[in-house]
Amino acid sequence: MKHLLIVAHGSRRQASNDEVRQLADKIRLKTDNQFDDVSCAFLELAEPSIPEGIELCVENGASNVTVMPYFLSAGRHVVTDIPEEIEKANIDREKIKVSIAPYLGSIESIADLMIEKASQFVNSNT
Amino acid sequence: MKHLLIVAHGSRRQASNDEVRQLADKIRLKTDNQFDDVSCAFLELAEPSIPEGIELCVENGASNVTVMPYFLSAGRHVVTDIPEEIEKANIDREKIKVSIAPYLGSIESIADLMIEKASQFVNSNT
Repeated sequence: MKHLLIVAHGSRRQASNDEVRQLADKIRLKTDNQFDDVSCAFLELAEPSIPEGIELCVENGASNVTVMPYFLSAGRHVVTDIPEEIEKANIDREKIKVSIAPYLGSIESIADLMIEKASQFVNSNT
Repeated sequence: MKHLLIVAHGSRRQASNDEVRQLADKIRLKTDNQFDDVSCAFLELAEPSIPEGIELCVENGASNVTVMPYFLSAGRHVVTDIPEEIEKANIDREKIKVSIAPYLGSIESIADLMIEKASQFVNSNT
């Protein structure tokens, strides 16, 4: 089974963490056959942590976990911290494959999304 | 003239700021008639600041500036700091309209974008 784990920074502001949880719920409802489950985890300040999040995927049957960083730039968190946290997961590495998908900010079509939204906004606002 | 100003947090890491500048360049090239120019500004740690960024838009002919926060959650920065910084711009408010578009993380179709990218990734990786 393939699971998608959205990893966000985590915030002291619970509403921000809940936005990420709602995003994971939305993606779970929208994904077709690509992923059997979708959940989220946090680098810090919220739960589950990244190792806990991966372990939960595996407890729920995942043999393949794709971690997607919900981050806008390839800073230390994306380059160093997330890979380190993934290593801490207490799972059988011979049976469970964990890989890191491109981080959100690197997705080419984000520019198109922003143009579309900004255009809608400016048209409804002028 | 309508300008789009992408506002990011700003980072001590110059490469992160440059990612935002490149995104603004990409959006400028992709936008059709909706915006006459596209630029970026930073809440802190990088230049131009938000007031400077707005003043630059106006110097370049903008009569309408749409600020789009390049942020993932509606935390203090989006709710309080960006509006406060916008107020500091030294412009003629009777002639220049400045408005704030929805922040990136609030765009509904981000979920679709993430599914698409994660699916591509997992297909090319398994």
